[in-house]
Amino acid sequence: MEQLEPILKPFSLYFSLNNGLSDTTPSLKRHLSKMKGMYADDQAYAAMTADGDPLLYEFYELGVPEQPGNLAFGTSIVYPGKVGSEYYMTKGHFHTILDTAEVYYCIGGKGYMLMENPEGDWTAEEFTPGKAVYVPGRYAHRSINIGNEPLITFYVFRSDAGHDYGSIETKGFRKIVVEQDGRPIIIDNPKWK
Amino acid sequence: MEQLEPILKPFSLYFSLNNGLSDTTPSLKRHLSKMKGMYADDQAYAAMTADGDPLLYEFYELGVPEQPGNLAFGTSIVYPGKVGSEYYMTKGHFHTILDTAEVYYCIGGKGYMLMENPEGDWTAEEFTPGKAVYVPGRYAHRSINIGNEPLITFYVFRSDAGHDYGSIETKGFRKIVVEQDGRPIIIDNPKWK
Repeated sequence: MEQLEPILKPFSLYFSLNNGLSDTTPSLKRHLSKMKGMYADDQAYAAMTADGDPLLYEFYELGVPEQPGNLAFGTSIVYPGKVGSEYYMTKGHFHTILDTAEVYYCIGGKGYMLMENPEGDWTAEEFTPGKAVYVPGRYAHRSINIGNEPLITFYVFRSDAGHDYGSIETKGFRKIVVEQDGRPIIIDNPKWK
Repeated sequence: MEQLEPILKPFSLYFSLNNGLSDTTPSLKRHLSKMKGMYADDQAYAAMTADGDPLLYEFYELGVPEQPGNLAFGTSIVYPGKVGSEYYMTKGHFHTILDTAEVYYCIGGKGYMLMENPEGDWTAEEFTPGKAVYVPGRYAHRSINIGNEPLITFYVFRSDAGHDYGSIETKGFRKIVVEQDGRPIIIDNPKWK
């Protein structure tokens, strides 16, 4: 963004508390076709991408210069839905500078922040409006919408942290969240390598 | 917090979107008597502290270990009111590691984030619900409530940034925000050194 160069000045940006969207800045949009192989049910995935390629989530990348004293921030909106029995989710990522944290504050919807570190520790923290979730350094993290409304979170991380999506695209998370008998359960990921 | 030692694990904490308060963790409370000399009107200040010492604001300090990869976060709630004609505000601070940023997301109320750097650049970004304000490194910052409801913000900063309150206590900000003819105006601080 031009106004951030060459010296970073104070600025503000609006993100609606109702739908998470900015009124001035375009979001990045992730449709289902960008997540090939990441859902457990390949048949359901193929049928859904053939039939309209739904928008799964959107988020913001504001271009704050990547320096260790700067922070990147924005909102993430994961829409409700399922691929087969598996709830809509973000790709998920490690930070390239592995030992950098991220904070998410949930302003709407219901879901999980699924996290795991290279040592195999994993956990799922619940998102409900007002819940702040701390993702420590070393933890890959993925937002999952288990409700009927958009899952909206406001996030902040060190702007130089970087995003490593490749590790998750290759290996997957150890766990997935699926609907069973009308409620979410956390089970082993059959595709996890 | 015990669960953060020795290795920082994922955790979550609730802060109400309605009043900003946690249901489990006590806040830190700042009453007027802790801000001697920081408001322009010493007579109004003396009368108000003699007559009950009102609560101006509260915020959270969660004890995340101070490391450059970690983030501190919480909410700040500045209550509505004035000392003379000057609106309730936080003490304000520089970060001890001067070149570290902070992000605030307004979830309720109306106000300003007043900012200035050692070079003399200053600005006031407006807080309304949904407004995210970026405080770059080098900028002292103070939240000011210009409305009739609590001004509630969710904030995140690098956990090792540190707080330098002393510089502001000694010098003050260059500008103050006062009510004139029923609306807020930004004027020179008569006490600024």
